[in-house]
Amino acid sequence: MRIAVDVMGGDHGPGEIIKGAVQALPELSGKVVLVGPTEIIKDELSSHKYNTNKLDIEEAPEVIEMGESPTKALRKKKKSSIVVGANLVRKGKADALVSAGSTGAVMAAGLLKVGRIKGVKRPAISTVMPALKGETLVLDVGANVDSKPENLVQYALMGNVYAEQILHKPEPKVGLLSVGEEEKKGNELTKGSHKLLKNLDINFIGNVEGRDIFAGDCDVVVCDGFVGNIVLKTAEGLGNALFKMLKSELDESMLAKVGALLMKSGLKNLKKKMDYAEYGGAPLLGVNGVVIISHGSSKSKAIKNAIQVAQESIKKQVVSRIKENINERTGEING
Amino acid sequence: MRIAVDVMGGDHGPGEIIKGAVQALPELSGKVVLVGPTEIIKDELSSHKYNTNKLDIEEAPEVIEMGESPTKALRKKKKSSIVVGANLVRKGKADALVSAGSTGAVMAAGLLKVGRIKGVKRPAISTVMPALKGETLVLDVGANVDSKPENLVQYALMGNVYAEQILHKPEPKVGLLSVGEEEKKGNELTKGSHKLLKNLDINFIGNVEGRDIFAGDCDVVVCDGFVGNIVLKTAEGLGNALFKMLKSELDESMLAKVGALLMKSGLKNLKKKMDYAEYGGAPLLGVNGVVIISHGSSKSKAIKNAIQVAQESIKKQVVSRIKENINERTGEING
Repeated sequence: MRIAVDVMGGDHGPGEIIKGAVQALPELSGKVVLVGPTEIIKDELSSHKYNTNKLDIEEAPEVIEMGESPTKALRKKKKSSIVVGANLVRKGKADALVSAGSTGAVMAAGLLKVGRIKGVKRPAISTVMPALKGETLVLDVGANVDSKPENLVQYALMGNVYAEQILHKPEPKVGLLSVGEEEKKGNELTKGSHKLLKNLDINFIGNVEGRDIFAGDCDVVVCDGFVGNIVLKTAEGLGNALFKMLKSELDESMLAKVGALLMKSGLKNLKKKMDYAEYGGAPLLGVNGVVIISHGSSKSKAIKNAIQVAQESIKKQVVSRIKENINERTGEING
Repeated sequence: MRIAVDVMGGDHGPGEIIKGAVQALPELSGKVVLVGPTEIIKDELSSHKYNTNKLDIEEAPEVIEMGESPTKALRKKKKSSIVVGANLVRKGKADALVSAGSTGAVMAAGLLKVGRIKGVKRPAISTVMPALKGETLVLDVGANVDSKPENLVQYALMGNVYAEQILHKPEPKVGLLSVGEEEKKGNELTKGSHKLLKNLDINFIGNVEGRDIFAGDCDVVVCDGFVGNIVLKTAEGLGNALFKMLKSELDESMLAKVGALLMKSGLKNLKKKMDYAEYGGAPLLGVNGVVIISHGSSKSKAIKNAIQVAQESIKKQVVSRIKENINERTGEING
């Protein structure tokens, strides 16, 4: 098993990325391939102790910056860490790619270099959100805007596999994100999707609403990428705002400060539950290899967790299970 | 000034609704008209002290239940509190309607009984969300799914008036909810809307993302009703989940409990900021009268605040200002 890690991605690369990769090694039953400028990687590695048998370097001198047009950058920068990493997966020289680089560029590299699974119309970015009970997988959170009902059906099949294998949910409950529980409530897309999802042999529980994501009564929530991305950023924004508001309320009183100190571990647990770093990254489902898109502000912990998620995805054969499901079960929707 | 209040709406009507109406009277420079079954109203009122000159009763023996089809209920139950209240506004016998009844039914009564402002294609439900700095008006949050760019332009104009007059924001910053700041990021709807909004003589700041709603850098956020409704319910759900998680973390340790007690006022302030009751209700903008849709779980405070918002909307002539804006400024989008 070989997991390619793009060391140049994100706000804290290469230092934190390499640190996270080194931290992941002890629990890894394979190798990490660090992809980036060899000199920089060697320099960073010199300050770490690690099992050298578990770490390879793949030279990639170029870097795709955050603002660049993904497709242009892919064409122009063939020696960038993202492209070189994706090509390792395409050629079978790596089983997975982990990158905290530009989401658009990693996604484009997944689609164009790693390639779609045959039969998958639109790969989807999925993300794990914390809930009162366990957690909820939401997809698509930004790969495709203006999805069609047949896309949402495939998101449901892919999310179903991922929730079962990686989130350890037997017969995951799959919901369709809409504006009311009744089948007739929603927009053209959800009404069309509901009809198809009903006929699919998965545990489809019908329409769910925004609040259900955080209740945890539903394991997989399926939606168009425009809507999913807005849900993700709304949740991030509100979470941050609440913690800041709480902090500013506390700063106003000495007594409250003492209180906060006493409840420190409780607050810390809560923040941990809300922290994307705990979940490692967002898998791009539907491409022909494991691709994990980590948050741009990932530090070592997020990268370490992303590598573990990648390892788990390889072990549980998520890609070939998705392949089987798409080929065998998409037919179900036509009866 | 006369404000009609549907006493039968919501989970806590008529008791809490009537209590809220009575609480609103001292600060009201007009009258409240309680709409519902006279006997029930009189019975409830007997336990309150109030200025009888400021309170009228309008008989409405029927009730529209939460699960009913709005349009059917409107046709069938002509003597329901929602229909009677809306008709008072249509006939000029009341200037505003406040109801915590079924959102669908209140909206339908607004559209079909009170009637649209001439030129408004789709009235929109708007809601105030708390932000780090002040608050943000979001619309549409559920009146229309599958909106068109020309609808979003009208939401912007209406939201602009409301934020200026009621939220006291001079030259409100208006943003378009999308998945990236760049004009080209988004779906067909937002790309089409962006082009039109650019040409409008308002303070349009371009695309904004989910997280910007809670930062407070933008005063009015415009979106399709499907997306807005999901944002609203996602925020409600996450807010509730966070408070519950915090509570369960605290329950686990005695020390944390003591801490929570010490920070009680801080937590209370935060909860207050997050509480929809503080904002009273969601105005239905674009109809020919003031219509405030209060939350189904409204208690007296929410109703009192909704009546105050209604009073403010009447005083500041929100309806006629929207009328002017729609007639004069919609033309701007064509240059």
